Amino acid sequence: MFFTNSFGIYGGVAGLFDYGPPGCAVKANHFVVNDDLLEVDCPCLTPEAVLRASGHVEKFTDLMVRDVKEGHCFRADHVLKDFLKDALEKDPRMPAAKRDDYTRTLASLDDFSAEELGAKIKEYGIRAPDTKNDLSDPFPFNLMFGTPIGPTGLLQGYLRPETAQGIFVNFNELLYYNGGKLPFGAAQIGQAFRNEIAPRQGLLRVREFTLAEIEFFVDPADKSHPKFASVADLEFFLYPRAEQMSLKDPVKVRLGHAVAQKVINNETLGYYIGRTYLFLTALGINKNRLRFRQHLANEMAHYAADCWDAEIECSYGWIECVGLADRSAYDLKAHSTASKSNLVASRDLPEPVVVEEFAAVPNRKEIGVAFKANQKLVLEALQELNNEEALEMQKKLESDGEAPLHICNADKTFTIKKGMVTFNKQVTKKSKEKFTPSVIEPSFGIGRIIYCLFEHCFDTRGGVDGQLNVFRFPALVAPVKCTVFPLVQNPKLDEIARAISAKLREAGIANKIDTTGRSIGRRYARTDEIGVPFAITVDSEDGVTVRDRDSKDQIRVPLEEVVDLIADMSAGKRSWKEVQGVYPAHVAAKASDESDE
Amino acid sequence: MFFTNSFGIYGGVAGLFDYGPPGCAVKANHFVVNDDLLEVDCPCLTPEAVLRASGHVEKFTDLMVRDVKEGHCFRADHVLKDFLKDALEKDPRMPAAKRDDYTRTLASLDDFSAEELGAKIKEYGIRAPDTKNDLSDPFPFNLMFGTPIGPTGLLQGYLRPETAQGIFVNFNELLYYNGGKLPFGAAQIGQAFRNEIAPRQGLLRVREFTLAEIEFFVDPADKSHPKFASVADLEFFLYPRAEQMSLKDPVKVRLGHAVAQKVINNETLGYYIGRTYLFLTALGINKNRLRFRQHLANEMAHYAADCWDAEIECSYGWIECVGLADRSAYDLKAHSTASKSNLVASRDLPEPVVVEEFAAVPNRKEIGVAFKANQKLVLEALQELNNEEALEMQKKLESDGEAPLHICNADKTFTIKKGMVTFNKQVTKKSKEKFTPSVIEPSFGIGRIIYCLFEHCFDTRGGVDGQLNVFRFPALVAPVKCTVFPLVQNPKLDEIARAISAKLREAGIANKIDTTGRSIGRRYARTDEIGVPFAITVDSEDGVTVRDRDSKDQIRVPLEEVVDLIADMSAGKRSWKEVQGVYPAHVAAKASDESDE
Repeated sequence: MFFTNSFGIYGGVAGLFDYGPPGCAVKANHFVVNDDLLEVDCPCLTPEAVLRASGHVEKFTDLMVRDVKEGHCFRADHVLKDFLKDALEKDPRMPAAKRDDYTRTLASLDDFSAEELGAKIKEYGIRAPDTKNDLSDPFPFNLMFGTPIGPTGLLQGYLRPETAQGIFVNFNELLYYNGGKLPFGAAQIGQAFRNEIAPRQGLLRVREFTLAEIEFFVDPADKSHPKFASVADLEFFLYPRAEQMSLKDPVKVRLGHAVAQKVINNETLGYYIGRTYLFLTALGINKNRLRFRQHLANEMAHYAADCWDAEIECSYGWIECVGLADRSAYDLKAHSTASKSNLVASRDLPEPVVVEEFAAVPNRKEIGVAFKANQKLVLEALQELNNEEALEMQKKLESDGEAPLHICNADKTFTIKKGMVTFNKQVTKKSKEKFTPSVIEPSFGIGRIIYCLFEHCFDTRGGVDGQLNVFRFPALVAPVKCTVFPLVQNPKLDEIARAISAKLREAGIANKIDTTGRSIGRRYARTDEIGVPFAITVDSEDGVTVRDRDSKDQIRVPLEEVVDLIADMSAGKRSWKEVQGVYPAHVAAKASDESDE
Repeated sequence: MFFTNSFGIYGGVAGLFDYGPPGCAVKANHFVVNDDLLEVDCPCLTPEAVLRASGHVEKFTDLMVRDVKEGHCFRADHVLKDFLKDALEKDPRMPAAKRDDYTRTLASLDDFSAEELGAKIKEYGIRAPDTKNDLSDPFPFNLMFGTPIGPTGLLQGYLRPETAQGIFVNFNELLYYNGGKLPFGAAQIGQAFRNEIAPRQGLLRVREFTLAEIEFFVDPADKSHPKFASVADLEFFLYPRAEQMSLKDPVKVRLGHAVAQKVINNETLGYYIGRTYLFLTALGINKNRLRFRQHLANEMAHYAADCWDAEIECSYGWIECVGLADRSAYDLKAHSTASKSNLVASRDLPEPVVVEEFAAVPNRKEIGVAFKANQKLVLEALQELNNEEALEMQKKLESDGEAPLHICNADKTFTIKKGMVTFNKQVTKKSKEKFTPSVIEPSFGIGRIIYCLFEHCFDTRGGVDGQLNVFRFPALVAPVKCTVFPLVQNPKLDEIARAISAKLREAGIANKIDTTGRSIGRRYARTDEIGVPFAITVDSEDGVTVRDRDSKDQIRVPLEEVVDLIADMSAGKRSWKEVQGVYPAHVAAKASDESDE
């Protein structure tokens, strides 16, 4: 029960999965938040204003076509792609010109507009896959789940399609919490939702999934990272834009070199690529089936400075599991404009600068008389006018004798009359300047990583009863670290086993005890199957054997040392190799293990 | 930034909150899952069938009234309650008869039907609180957020109002994972959603919240708990039904006594009440402001065997933070019926029983010929007929020569003809019997607990600059365990401080380093304010001082021992008292701390 179809007893729903006990532990315990990131936890329910500012209300869509008779819906690009692939595979004698056309269309699918997709579907005479009915023209379908908030239903809400927006809207408070200093990062782990038109591929494309996102805020003039040196010597597979365009293979490069050569745009982006590599391989992802692929120009948003995907190879091909993007100042600027809050940081100027500011000096008495209950609102708004606005108001007052003052937060407009305000030129020295930080965003699709981890850790080996399954999770991420078995059914051994299990639990080590009388080989096989790295077998009253899942080697360990030993190995502090040098091997039992299997 | 209004830069939405870095750590790290519970993680999006079976689609409603002119909505009971309270408070000279009537109405508010509430609102002439317009009759408003799933919008979904249903629908797989044995428990921590009509009281009544729910499945014939003895001697405040009805105070009782006297229905429910007491007090909840209140008969669902709420006193009064209910077999039976899956366990009979079973013996050849591709489906369905169904089919075949066979899972009906099946009386010995388990459900409202924890841990003390705030979180739950300060600005001391901070992080201990040159007293005050229990001050190259937040006492500790010491104290393995006996006091620095504050 690593994962199962959600609500299976009711027939299930496409794109919704439950994690069972072992899957859940992998997911929850082992996303390592390093680097003093500020963790936040925002609601899934998000009001429309936020997602309108971020562009999701308008642009977070897939193109859909509808079976005109049955109403079934399909992704327009999938329909076209499936048709072309199918034709290319099934018709080897296709004329060369047609084959060229199909191949070219297949390659440029991702760039097609709705009109172009529709034209191609018409041109090829593509019909609904199951019924062969006509298809509608492609139309955009927003992938967000909408739900009205509150009893009147007037406030439109959506389930968040990503967790990042919750961090952006809290930028000012996070900056304050961090003492006003850049760079810093914030992280959020939580559910995100996408109303996929046609979920496929199990855990890889789902309607609700766990995202872990980091938004790391930097000064756009200085994207260096203090810890970059710690990852600069890592070597792993990169697939830069140039290699993709010239149809070459990914290249194994030293990270420091890639950043120095500007293949990767900057140190902070490079640092997180390195950290992602370390994180994924520590989980148990095979480093030879992991690559970082740079986005091509047509995949990247216009504002992005550089984007890379960590792709992991599994039985479905190369799957995007982590996105790493330098999104420049786009998000903070978008929310600043839409919310009228200044999401900015400040930096020291190399030397102070003299600035002329044009400021409103309100006549408090006249404003009090004219606006009564609203006087405070008006006074504040006047004081917050910027240079240009103040200049404009002064002009208007001189030409018309009055000027409108719009207050966005309150959505009210007041009429200011001549005499209520005068204007003053102030000369001040400034030693700081404000700017909008850039954001570097690593975004981890936890479900996809777990799925690939399951594939990479899955292995089989021969046994007497036939093939046995083994999950080779590293000890650090294994959901259950250890099993405890009395060798034979015996109250005394049972009691010792229970005591060890209780002590392990006290030390925070997930373990399972199995006091059934089944043969020890069968019990080992069962724990291998769910990926438990260590097994303690209690065979006497003063010592136990510890078995390693991967080598099937065993050692003898004194009773009073076994809990600390398992704790150290589970935390990755000591390896099995090291430990084998300290404790004597237990050969007899190994033989029985083998023969029993 | 413990918590903040969600999407505040857009004006916020009632009932949605973000947790900032310290609040988040309290919430995430410290809900202790003990007792080998099986953790599961199900989607928030839930199809209608599940919530129809659980009763939420029909009954999870509040009664609402609408301002007939403006459309504003109010909870009907709140409108009536506010009116009565207001009248009773503001009119001391109210005639006794009227006062009696108002008081009686106030006491029975929770029992009123829609009609009764409407009648009272009319009788008292209550109008909309703000506009004084007329109010509509009360009508039910479902508190679930609805959203269609998939592109056609035909599958109705809801955001789950609790996490429990995800466990119930997985019962069979969890039972199998547990080796078919009872009792066992499953747990889920996740978001739940309720579209409250009028969210009030900050974190206490919100539209999206974190629930931690345990569903502990037991044999209804044996609700004992193997670990009950470990909590039986706890003494704390219970508020049983009898005391409430006779307007007495809560009573301090030994838990073992309460279960023995049947004040608490059974051992398993008692065990979880005890564990909840231990959990809440370990977090830092004041045991004198915590009580377990039993539900009155009118508060409890008809199927429930017993219910208790852990209530914590805070500035809003006594707040229900944990619900503990024996829900009997209700949930599993409801889902069995609706999904046609048998959610049952089996137990050994005291001795084997001989049963007569009436079984279908299909004629495989004739069925093969008649149903071709469907023959397997039909064969299986025939073999699964129970006694009654087989008897009925036999009758029908004899009278009509044919009988319908409906297969629910496939939603198909086949016509079985005479000769396709014969019936056989089989006498078998049974040593097991099936039954529907009862479920004991502890349900923790994490946001409410955190809110109360903040109140109970908040304290102030005098200082030179005026009053200072202190959060007295126990070390075990404090979001940041330790701060590291160089005593004065000095590259050598900075380097040592950085090294200590890095080692603490490696050991998994959240810490903050402060190398600003601010006075040590100010730095202590700042960490007291966010509840950091320990501060390490680096004042020389071979040793440091460690300060305890609560006593402000300091000790001198050798450099190489300080990380282990903080680790032990953070994990609750050693107390400050114990540690003071081992290391020498550091008196001079204490004086400077005091004088500086």
